[in-house]
Amino acid sequence: MKRNEPNFDRVFNALGDATRRAMLERLSSGPVSSAMSVSWLAEPFKITLAAVVQHLQVLEDAGLVTTEKVGRVRSCRVDSGGLDAAVQWLRARRPEWNRRLDRLGEMLVEEDRE
Amino acid sequence: MKRNEPNFDRVFNALGDATRRAMLERLSSGPVSSAMSVSWLAEPFKITLAAVVQHLQVLEDAGLVTTEKVGRVRSCRVDSGGLDAAVQWLRARRPEWNRRLDRLGEMLVEEDRE
Repeated sequence: MKRNEPNFDRVFNALGDATRRAMLERLSSGPVSSAMSVSWLAEPFKITLAAVVQHLQVLEDAGLVTTEKVGRVRSCRVDSGGLDAAVQWLRARRPEWNRRLDRLGEMLVEEDRE
Repeated sequence: MKRNEPNFDRVFNALGDATRRAMLERLSSGPVSSAMSVSWLAEPFKITLAAVVQHLQVLEDAGLVTTEKVGRVRSCRVDSGGLDAAVQWLRARRPEWNRRLDRLGEMLVEEDRE
């Protein structure tokens, strides 16, 4: 699914469920950018594989996870696009926070110049 | 309402509604830390004042807004606690992002030492 701009209703509602957040936690605990099989993802959850796949679909529709099917195995990984969109939105609502990050950004530019 | 740890279900579900996000946007557009009256907040929304108050309650229960009643006027402001909690949660799920912020944090410590 391609999106031009994030659907924040989908992003935040996907995050508003403890099981889906735990799935994102499990996916983000591995090495950066590595893909995991759906059965590995499902392991610690006391719900059916069908329920896991349904939650995964909600996360994928929100741009928080990407899945790929290679042969008979579906693998999934955290999609940083959805996470970044949510963080950007929250940052823009937090004026002080934003200014602090701007200051950090300026310091980075300074460092690059040196 | 005092909370020991953020209720992420509440935080993210509160954010999963376009009207509530627009209310947060309106509240964060003013000067930092300033409180606004509920009737000022309600102005651009084509919903009843009762509906605005109901959305405000959801935002307050999630720790995203604080309200205070002085005399007959209830004022409200963005509560950065809820926003920060959401950002912290998202950051921890985004390994690369997190490492970059760690690096910025180290630079700040370096700067303080100088």
